[in-house]
Amino acid sequence: MTSIGLAVVGAGYWGPNLVRNAQAVPALDLRWLCDLDAARAAAVLGRYTTVRATTSYAEVLADPAVHAVAIATPAATHFDLARAALEAGKHVLVEKPLTATRAEGEKLVELAREQDRILMCDHTFCYTPVVRRIRELVRGGEVGDIRFVDSVRINLGLVQPDVDVLWDLAPHDLSILDFVLPEDVRPVAVAAHASDPMGTGKACLAYLTVWLSSGAMAHVHVNWLSPTKIRTTVIGGSRRTIVWDDVNPAQRLAVYDRGVEVEALGPDERRQKLISYRTGDVLVPALPEQEALRNMMTEFADAITEGRAPVTDGAAGVRVLTLLEAVSRSLELGGIRVEVEA
Amino acid sequence: MTSIGLAVVGAGYWGPNLVRNAQAVPALDLRWLCDLDAARAAAVLGRYTTVRATTSYAEVLADPAVHAVAIATPAATHFDLARAALEAGKHVLVEKPLTATRAEGEKLVELAREQDRILMCDHTFCYTPVVRRIRELVRGGEVGDIRFVDSVRINLGLVQPDVDVLWDLAPHDLSILDFVLPEDVRPVAVAAHASDPMGTGKACLAYLTVWLSSGAMAHVHVNWLSPTKIRTTVIGGSRRTIVWDDVNPAQRLAVYDRGVEVEALGPDERRQKLISYRTGDVLVPALPEQEALRNMMTEFADAITEGRAPVTDGAAGVRVLTLLEAVSRSLELGGIRVEVEA
Amino acid sequence: MTSIGLAVVGAGYWGPNLVRNAQAVPALDLRWLCDLDAARAAAVLGRYTTVRATTSYAEVLADPAVHAVAIATPAATHFDLARAALEAGKHVLVEKPLTATRAEGEKLVELAREQDRILMCDHTFCYTPVVRRIRELVRGGEVGDIRFVDSVRINLGLVQPDVDVLWDLAPHDLSILDFVLPEDVRPVAVAAHASDPMGTGKACLAYLTVWLSSGAMAHVHVNWLSPTKIRTTVIGGSRRTIVWDDVNPAQRLAVYDRGVEVEALGPDERRQKLISYRTGDVLVPALPEQEALRNMMTEFADAITEGRAPVTDGAAGVRVLTLLEAVSRSLELGGIRVEVEA
Amino acid sequence: MTSIGLAVVGAGYWGPNLVRNAQAVPALDLRWLCDLDAARAAAVLGRYTTVRATTSYAEVLADPAVHAVAIATPAATHFDLARAALEAGKHVLVEKPLTATRAEGEKLVELAREQDRILMCDHTFCYTPVVRRIRELVRGGEVGDIRFVDSVRINLGLVQPDVDVLWDLAPHDLSILDFVLPEDVRPVAVAAHASDPMGTGKACLAYLTVWLSSGAMAHVHVNWLSPTKIRTTVIGGSRRTIVWDDVNPAQRLAVYDRGVEVEALGPDERRQKLISYRTGDVLVPALPEQEALRNMMTEFADAITEGRAPVTDGAAGVRVLTLLEAVSRSLELGGIRVEVEA
Repeated sequence: MTSIGLAVVGAGYWGPNLVRNAQAVPALDLRWLCDLDAARAAAVLGRYTTVRATTSYAEVLADPAVHAVAIATPAATHFDLARAALEAGKHVLVEKPLTATRAEGEKLVELAREQDRILMCDHTFCYTPVVRRIRELVRGGEVGDIRFVDSVRINLGLVQPDVDVLWDLAPHDLSILDFVLPEDVRPVAVAAHASDPMGTGKACLAYLTVWLSSGAMAHVHVNWLSPTKIRTTVIGGSRRTIVWDDVNPAQRLAVYDRGVEVEALGPDERRQKLISYRTGDVLVPALPEQEALRNMMTEFADAITEGRAPVTDGAAGVRVLTLLEAVSRSLELGGIRVEVEA
Repeated sequence: MTSIGLAVVGAGYWGPNLVRNAQAVPALDLRWLCDLDAARAAAVLGRYTTVRATTSYAEVLADPAVHAVAIATPAATHFDLARAALEAGKHVLVEKPLTATRAEGEKLVELAREQDRILMCDHTFCYTPVVRRIRELVRGGEVGDIRFVDSVRINLGLVQPDVDVLWDLAPHDLSILDFVLPEDVRPVAVAAHASDPMGTGKACLAYLTVWLSSGAMAHVHVNWLSPTKIRTTVIGGSRRTIVWDDVNPAQRLAVYDRGVEVEALGPDERRQKLISYRTGDVLVPALPEQEALRNMMTEFADAITEGRAPVTDGAAGVRVLTLLEAVSRSLELGGIRVEVEA
Repeated sequence: MTSIGLAVVGAGYWGPNLVRNAQAVPALDLRWLCDLDAARAAAVLGRYTTVRATTSYAEVLADPAVHAVAIATPAATHFDLARAALEAGKHVLVEKPLTATRAEGEKLVELAREQDRILMCDHTFCYTPVVRRIRELVRGGEVGDIRFVDSVRINLGLVQPDVDVLWDLAPHDLSILDFVLPEDVRPVAVAAHASDPMGTGKACLAYLTVWLSSGAMAHVHVNWLSPTKIRTTVIGGSRRTIVWDDVNPAQRLAVYDRGVEVEALGPDERRQKLISYRTGDVLVPALPEQEALRNMMTEFADAITEGRAPVTDGAAGVRVLTLLEAVSRSLELGGIRVEVEA
Repeated sequence: MTSIGLAVVGAGYWGPNLVRNAQAVPALDLRWLCDLDAARAAAVLGRYTTVRATTSYAEVLADPAVHAVAIATPAATHFDLARAALEAGKHVLVEKPLTATRAEGEKLVELAREQDRILMCDHTFCYTPVVRRIRELVRGGEVGDIRFVDSVRINLGLVQPDVDVLWDLAPHDLSILDFVLPEDVRPVAVAAHASDPMGTGKACLAYLTVWLSSGAMAHVHVNWLSPTKIRTTVIGGSRRTIVWDDVNPAQRLAVYDRGVEVEALGPDERRQKLISYRTGDVLVPALPEQEALRNMMTEFADAITEGRAPVTDGAAGVRVLTLLEAVSRSLELGGIRVEVEA
């Protein structure tokens, strides 16, 4: 197998991570780092590299040795950059969110199909060992029926000029939900409340409710103003409850055999429920130490080589955009429930 | 000072705590424990007591040595029991929520005024050293302007036949807010979403948004189905942020000198904000070890002796009921924002 | 069965716990609390009790309705008080350490045998659900061969005039070792270093090494000067390692399927060891919520009723004293290893 | 200033960290990575580098553009490699321990003096923000007189064929002590117990006591067999106590205003001490995020440029070796106290 020539576009916050991990994937051959700011690109590459920096995206796309581009620029630029790359016959990996609108995302998916190129969205968390294990536990039935999902993702964060906290952080939670929930359990409606207590012009903290097709409710709390870092997702099920605490490396995942059970309907006419409690053991599964971004870039390379859709393909990116647009609509309408178009 | 004769009514979940703490307050003279279940009352008192058990509330009210009653029965019975006591000339302490409806609560407040008796609501957390300190920090200005409040109160809880999780747990958070917020920052509207994923007939988990008169947002997550116990309240301010973690006795309260600042408006016409970040020290204040319930019962005794309103008086109980009724209305209306009547 | 008349002797630090728990054990009938300080005894009993306070130990021993005494006085007084009780035909429970010297302890054991009375030492931790489970795990073979034991018991503690930190705190660790280790794995030697950095006249922090008959080493760190409270015991085994963290109620016990393995001897002449690593799951067993002291007093009552030795009998107390005396000898000799007499 | 040509020697466990950080220090010009295993060196450098790999140390020393070498090879080889480099006129940085024996270390120090070259020992932790702050707190008087030091450094570790756990891990603790203790408080004696419960031929866990010239005691627990990772150092002082928990990034350093005080001598002839307790606040200082190894390599470059001794110079390395040799002697002599030669 010949290696896949790659260019990374964007040397800002996320680009350097792509540069570093691309160099660690044997199937990839990193050739360019492209950024409008030449000094920044050079600084990211360092003094000891054979990778070239450029400010010309045209130069990158014109290089026949470049087979794929990885885009880590502001969301508003994703569509144009990705379209140009697809039209130039390159495979494309895009940082989340896939594009600034659902319509743009759908166009990219269609274009990739026409060009017969890979379009992949960098939903990084789906490539962590912990989320892979959660998906196995949920889809394998160990969790049972899902009763609730509660996710908290708060920290002192970068207040950003172009996106609010929901578009910045909730794609993580929504893409994880998309990945781990059983295929027949899908979001059907959302509602959100947000607040901009400092008058920055963008919501800095928000609460998002997601109703699932099964009837269960998921909830996401995102916040840029928290002095403490919390990244916890709880998936409550009828058989087990999963607690994922991402800032606790000693116990990132715990599976609780504890819960409430409605044992039976009572015999009388008031249909009294008999509630009981189960207090069992907690299992902390051993997880391999793997860098998610390396797994993600390996999946990109494998999808290209094997000519198949990657795990987090353009369609997954569009599903997340569909939810984000419904969330924004709920915010505009004062927090009412907004149905999600299929 | 002669001591205050007291009867405790209700030997269920909360009554035994009142019995134990009443015996530790010098100004109180515990005379009766009253419960419809004679065996349960006797078991709570134990074999070594001089306190009498009775199943007759009339006997209690007829005892001229009883000056006050403490009611810890199901919420639906609070109104009748408290009214009878006030009409019999007794001072009354009631477990939260004060009554089953706001209208009932207002009637009790009025009756207590007419009878010139103390009516107190057991908002226990307001008597913990940690909440007292939080009130000082907030009202003393150390926190600055409040930007957000986020409270999580989840655990494997008793699914109850008569109240949902909001009426069971949120009174804690709402009474704490009532106690610690500056007097000019009051709840003006609420919205809530809830879920009963097991079909118990009562909401078992819920998310509650509270808009404050200052424009800031508070949020409360209550849940009976969580296998882990979390009781955390964060109060984000412009100067400091408070993190109260009630299940961490080694560090129950932490004051963070960290945050985001909008330093100034930029000069250009787009009124660009200049955001900066402050990463300062964290202070963990030493707190005295005190049992909240003992402080609460001492306050009850002091209010009776001094003929003054207690810190958590009937009016505080009514304010919490006002919010709870608005919350229930929001739930009925699909989660829309409901204004709180003043 | 008629109930066992009990007197508690000592109303200081530990006595009130015995008083409270004695009242909760159905088989016991608490009759007296005896202390030289009448006011203190009265305060411990409170205003609502039917239990009598006395300053006269003779009065207690003369009461034919008293069948047993529980002694919670300074260690130096244990021998005389226990001897008098045994000679008066009472069963005796003594707070740890059993007596001030091994010789005294052996005399009590002999006297109890002669009088045909129960002599029990209050090694409280042996009655906690967590230590009981640890004993099952170790003696049941799940841990495998014990490779090391490491115990840390530090806190801001009461600097005491009569005992040093080793005699105050190490009895907990030594009695736990005595209880959980397999019967054929016994301490054979000790060494200790201690320090009194404030010149209080008593060692305030100490490190204790215990060699076991299996060749493994146990180590205990006790400290009265630590601003943080740590109570952790690790039992490393060839199959599993147990971590008991007593200040973490959410995860008091964890069983790690992780470790180092010497797989085989290599073939060459240097007899090279092949080391491998096992990184398996962690199990957090569900433990019942039980108060150790209530279990302990129930065991005392059961041993009396059934005429059998209690789990932590006088002989167990003597074994702990034997180790403590060897420890003190090591300290006197500058920390050298001192063999333990069988 | 022209940059300093550097070669890294050793591509094993530690070398890659030196390679990565050397590339991030502007004053350094990394030219070579030297290892006997050519493939390993090439793999460490990766496919995108301009740095050359070599198996010939002679080639490195013969390169006039190499002004300095950084040695990260097994300890037994440090002396010969460092001597050759110094004789070739290169500055030398050596991974801890400086050499395999104190005598070798002293020879290197003398040789560096003769050659007028920098000899530096990589005591990495001395370059962390947390240890720098601890040094300020201790040497600035905020801690007061040191009463005790307790350090725990345990984890599932690499059982090594050439060094035992003390020579592997204790250099960290001993170099930190050397760095943070006041200059007039020095180790005067040591004692150690160790265990090799699996028969690997090397001690896998050990307890080390260090007596300080002030009379206080320090203690170090190192262990390769622990399934949990603990890296905690407590420095108890008369005014404050420092707790450094290196695996808790949210609270790496805490300064406790808590402790025991001997307030005064009592008036009577028994010279009774009056003990009191102070329970004050805890301060968690904000610490900058800095990579220790980058700080360390910057110090190496600065020392070369400025022609001065680095903070952790050869003499510091020799002081640690002096302690390690005394520790080994104590182990051979069954754990007795061994004085440290000045």
